[in-house]
Amino acid sequence: MNEQQTMAMRETLTVQSRQVFPPDTNHHGTLFGGKLMAYIDETAAIAATKLARGPVVTASTDSVDFIKPIRVGDVVDIEAMVSWTGRSSMEIFIKITSEDLLTRTKSIAALSFLTFVALDENGKPTRIPAVIPETDEEKWLNETAIKRAEHRKVRKKESEDLARYFTKGK
Amino acid sequence: MNEQQTMAMRETLTVQSRQVFPPDTNHHGTLFGGKLMAYIDETAAIAATKLARGPVVTASTDSVDFIKPIRVGDVVDIEAMVSWTGRSSMEIFIKITSEDLLTRTKSIAALSFLTFVALDENGKPTRIPAVIPETDEEKWLNETAIKRAEHRKVRKKESEDLARYFTKGK
Amino acid sequence: MNEQQTMAMRETLTVQSRQVFPPDTNHHGTLFGGKLMAYIDETAAIAATKLARGPVVTASTDSVDFIKPIRVGDVVDIEAMVSWTGRSSMEIFIKITSEDLLTRTKSIAALSFLTFVALDENGKPTRIPAVIPETDEEKWLNETAIKRAEHRKVRKKESEDLARYFTKGK
Amino acid sequence: MNEQQTMAMRETLTVQSRQVFPPDTNHHGTLFGGKLMAYIDETAAIAATKLARGPVVTASTDSVDFIKPIRVGDVVDIEAMVSWTGRSSMEIFIKITSEDLLTRTKSIAALSFLTFVALDENGKPTRIPAVIPETDEEKWLNETAIKRAEHRKVRKKESEDLARYFTKGK
Amino acid sequence: MNEQQTMAMRETLTVQSRQVFPPDTNHHGTLFGGKLMAYIDETAAIAATKLARGPVVTASTDSVDFIKPIRVGDVVDIEAMVSWTGRSSMEIFIKITSEDLLTRTKSIAALSFLTFVALDENGKPTRIPAVIPETDEEKWLNETAIKRAEHRKVRKKESEDLARYFTKGK
Amino acid sequence: MNEQQTMAMRETLTVQSRQVFPPDTNHHGTLFGGKLMAYIDETAAIAATKLARGPVVTASTDSVDFIKPIRVGDVVDIEAMVSWTGRSSMEIFIKITSEDLLTRTKSIAALSFLTFVALDENGKPTRIPAVIPETDEEKWLNETAIKRAEHRKVRKKESEDLARYFTKGK
Ligand SMILES: CC(C)(COP(=O)(O)OP(=O)(O)OC[C@H]1O[C@@H](n2cnc3c(N)ncnc32)[C@H](O)[C@@H]1OP(=O)(O)O)[C@@H](O)C(=O)NCCC(=O)NCCS
Ligand SMILES: CC(C)(COP(=O)(O)OP(=O)(O)OC[C@H]1O[C@@H](n2cnc3c(N)ncnc32)[C@H](O)[C@@H]1OP(=O)(O)O)[C@@H](O)C(=O)NCCC(=O)NCCS
Ligand SMILES: CC(C)(COP(=O)(O)OP(=O)(O)OC[C@H]1O[C@@H](n2cnc3c(N)ncnc32)[C@H](O)[C@@H]1OP(=O)(O)O)[C@@H](O)C(=O)NCCC(=O)NCCS
Ligand SMILES: CC(C)(COP(=O)(O)OP(=O)(O)OC[C@H]1O[C@@H](n2cnc3c(N)ncnc32)[C@H](O)[C@@H]1OP(=O)(O)O)[C@@H](O)C(=O)NCCC(=O)NCCS
Repeated sequence: MNEQQTMAMRETLTVQSRQVFPPDTNHHGTLFGGKLMAYIDETAAIAATKLARGPVVTASTDSVDFIKPIRVGDVVDIEAMVSWTGRSSMEIFIKITSEDLLTRTKSIAALSFLTFVALDENGKPTRIPAVIPETDEEKWLNETAIKRAEHRKVRKKESEDLARYFTKGK
Repeated sequence: MNEQQTMAMRETLTVQSRQVFPPDTNHHGTLFGGKLMAYIDETAAIAATKLARGPVVTASTDSVDFIKPIRVGDVVDIEAMVSWTGRSSMEIFIKITSEDLLTRTKSIAALSFLTFVALDENGKPTRIPAVIPETDEEKWLNETAIKRAEHRKVRKKESEDLARYFTKGK
Repeated sequence: MNEQQTMAMRETLTVQSRQVFPPDTNHHGTLFGGKLMAYIDETAAIAATKLARGPVVTASTDSVDFIKPIRVGDVVDIEAMVSWTGRSSMEIFIKITSEDLLTRTKSIAALSFLTFVALDENGKPTRIPAVIPETDEEKWLNETAIKRAEHRKVRKKESEDLARYFTKGK
Repeated sequence: MNEQQTMAMRETLTVQSRQVFPPDTNHHGTLFGGKLMAYIDETAAIAATKLARGPVVTASTDSVDFIKPIRVGDVVDIEAMVSWTGRSSMEIFIKITSEDLLTRTKSIAALSFLTFVALDENGKPTRIPAVIPETDEEKWLNETAIKRAEHRKVRKKESEDLARYFTKGK
Repeated sequence: MNEQQTMAMRETLTVQSRQVFPPDTNHHGTLFGGKLMAYIDETAAIAATKLARGPVVTASTDSVDFIKPIRVGDVVDIEAMVSWTGRSSMEIFIKITSEDLLTRTKSIAALSFLTFVALDENGKPTRIPAVIPETDEEKWLNETAIKRAEHRKVRKKESEDLARYFTKGK
Repeated sequence: MNEQQTMAMRETLTVQSRQVFPPDTNHHGTLFGGKLMAYIDETAAIAATKLARGPVVTASTDSVDFIKPIRVGDVVDIEAMVSWTGRSSMEIFIKITSEDLLTRTKSIAALSFLTFVALDENGKPTRIPAVIPETDEEKWLNETAIKRAEHRKVRKKESEDLARYFTKGK
């Protein structure tokens, strides 16, 4: 484990600005959902690694609602920040903003939470420092995280039951 | 709209086998979550297009629990099938199986549901044929879908509220 | 070597569905031949690895006639199956079907045979289990393979002669 | 059609040097066959376009024997040249040389012939200038091409028959 | 032209965080220079487009000294900001910081200046708003830019002379 | 160190022909500067490795003026040659020619010089053979290189000073 016991949430903030080009889009010229998911995972992994200072893996992604299409020429800002820490797992808050550069109007295109787990050299989950929220927004994210973490435990059991159902079905 | 009123669920089944190579993996030699999400969206979009016979967009992805790491050399099977249809929206069931070719043991690595919406020439949601389940598994998926669709409506409202909260925060 | 002596041909069947997007196409909106060749090699390698349960290399590809252009928006199904086994080499049968999703007409776009060789830890050719054909189609493929394998031996000698001619030419 | 009636073979010569890096290779550190096929198609298409001065498509690739593995760190030279012209079709000769930079030993890794067809604005085959061989090697390639072109006609008929057999089988 | 006459330099700030993975690196596990140049151009183009609110092209890149190797696992921050504006051309300041996540030591890996030109619908250079520096650092960058811009005019003439020399040489 | 003491400049010549396709271009259908920079670095690295016969890294790139846009469909020839050698460092001359295949007009799109350093097994700079110029062009490049190398030393010091300034600024 890492000596440092805590880290300010803000210090894990990671930003990636991308411009949308035709190869990333479908016939309507809007960004593929899968492409955005790949950007999200890449940015979230950097935020998680800043805290863990070692390898991390994606344990789960929460649901994502794609509120608004992102168009060719738009700039997409992917912002990731560790919003909550367990023992070896951490929740990453993701905010996707898209900006039409012609009109300079920005809007939120999607929000999500991913969970990453820190691993030691043997690939086993390992303890991480706790994050400390400072702003109101950060405190709100951190406090509501406990309920989301509990909900994920239930959900994971359901996933495993479903997996068992579909394994028998083979 | 499309003349055909219904289609058997099975006819939308889409399969993509991929082998995992080092560039797709992290330092522990396990597949990136974002890479798998991109494969999932690509395969689901094909299943959705088979039904819609025209352009579709990802409206949302449900949560995904990565039950088992997928390792370098493993073969990943991504299976997608339209499991439920609304008016313009459809739910896609996704089953991810990974296979260790050395031991030929297969296991479910993740399960998920995505929602796609069919669009007309003007990019507006357009009516799609209904899918007809035939096997027990298909019937189970189709019947339980209604509850999931309702749950997504609630969730989408929450997403939009959250987006509004984070827009004010700017 | 692998303990198992035989495997049903069908068990090596590998399928990859892909949708064609603009970046994969030329100015006429048809899929690049080289892109299709890369998909073919990737899918064939998975089929070969399912039998060999270890590393394989492409020893040769037979000629490929691109019977029909594959267009933007089409779904391409790449099907690969081990159709014949020698000592360390195996023939992979490839069937490429393209489907226009608007009209749902499917047609065969190309057929081919590749030969893969299984390698041991030292990179030397190693013995593989034999495949057993079951259906009429499989039997036909398996029986006609012997003549193709013989033809390839002659062809390889010619290739090596040609290589020698062009080496002298330097 | 193009006004110029002929062009020296040499003027269509196209060269692409590439160094092999780990993401392009399998577990034994040797280049994927499919990756090489994609390089071949890209280089051949440039040679064909130099003659046709307009869009071209791959009509077929002849068989390719991968004589020697190409290793991480090696430099691969892909050389393409139009070796024969029909009315709208042309044969492209491909020579693949790999070089171990440490020992500076070069050897031929594969040879092949591809056929491209020139298209007009409507996507229909269009007449191309004839190529004129000058060196002994070029003359040899050009003269032996007629037999290869005839052989391809027979082969294409066989491919179409095979396609019909596998279409019935559906 | 754009109605807005000026914009604060800070408003054009664009950040891209990337983690270095093995496929982006050479045999010593350090990032390829060309890969970094591509990240730089992508990030700089977003900063330029924020000001121009329309298409831009890279007119030139100044020299880049790669002061420190960037290693597998490091996080690279690419920061771009418009530092000076002419009539249609603008200078983009680029700062590359790499961070070793294990020790959390950050250092500057490279600095550079690129020039972009804004284009109108006909692809002709078009007038852009001026940037206003605010902090001391920004003022320093903006004031020293004039000398750099003059130096580039001389340099461009030399480039064109050199190009003429090498054209004759053909 | 390498036994061979000298090598003719010409023996390091490396050529890469590429055709420009839509995914490599911006909204005006012209090649991205960053894409060209990546091609340049890849080709220059091969030329440098031919001389060094071992791993090399990019130490710096001189300024690049993009004299002419390169359009969709154009063929770009990237030519690299070691033009000067120090102890462990070498200068690579780069000539970018673009050709409009319709009119077969060729023109120089950019020229540049990169410096690479050869590294030994421990990643330390290591001695390389000297290059011998033969043609007039080669002699001119080789003789003028000394002044450029001296200029780079001054420039590198300036880069390091600038880096220090921006580090303090943090
Ligand atoms: C999906 C989208 C077209 C829906 O548009 P809308 O204006 O909300 O349209 P409607 O309210 O009429 O809804 C249309 C259908 O979509 C469904 N829907 C909308 N949002 C949904 C969500 N987040 N999850 C599941 N279903 C959703 C509705 O229930 C409705 O279903 P029905 O026609 O079967 O009854 C719109 O939100 C959108 O364009 N989102 C961005 C999509 C995108 O670009 N994805 C990739 C992002 S990188
Ligand atoms: C394929 C390869 C391993 C064969 O090695 P080899 O020294 O010729 O070995 P052998 O003569 O013992 O042949 C081994 C088997 O391969 C078969 N074979 C060899 N070349 C072949 C070819 N061009 N086409 C079909 N089969 C071939 C032989 O018939 C033999 O089959 P069997 O064991 O079933 O009887 C070798 O040629 C090689 O490494 N080639 C490069 C492979 C590669 O890197 N491909 C990708 C290139 S980018
Ligand atoms: C290039 C590098 C190895 C030089 O290391 P160093 O400790 O400065 O070594 P030295 O001072 O002994 O210089 C070695 C040689 O490089 C030359 N050199 C160093 N920096 C240079 C620069 N920016 N431009 C041109 N030449 C340079 C020196 O002149 C010297 O040349 P010589 O041996 O021919 O006389 C080191 O700066 C480095 O690793 N940089 C990062 C390289 C990299 O990763 N590039 C890709 C970045 S994404
Ligand atoms: C950049 C380009 C548009 C300039 O066109 P031009 O005919 O030289 O236009 P002008 O002489 O009117 O110059 C326009 C502006 O660009 C500036 N400029 C031109 N070349 C420049 C260079 N190499 N470096 C810096 N600034 C340059 C001029 O100083 C002028 O600035 P100002 O308007 O602020 O006073 C043109 O050279 C071009 O299209 N180059 C190729 C760009 C490209 O495709 N890049 C990617 C290559 S892969």
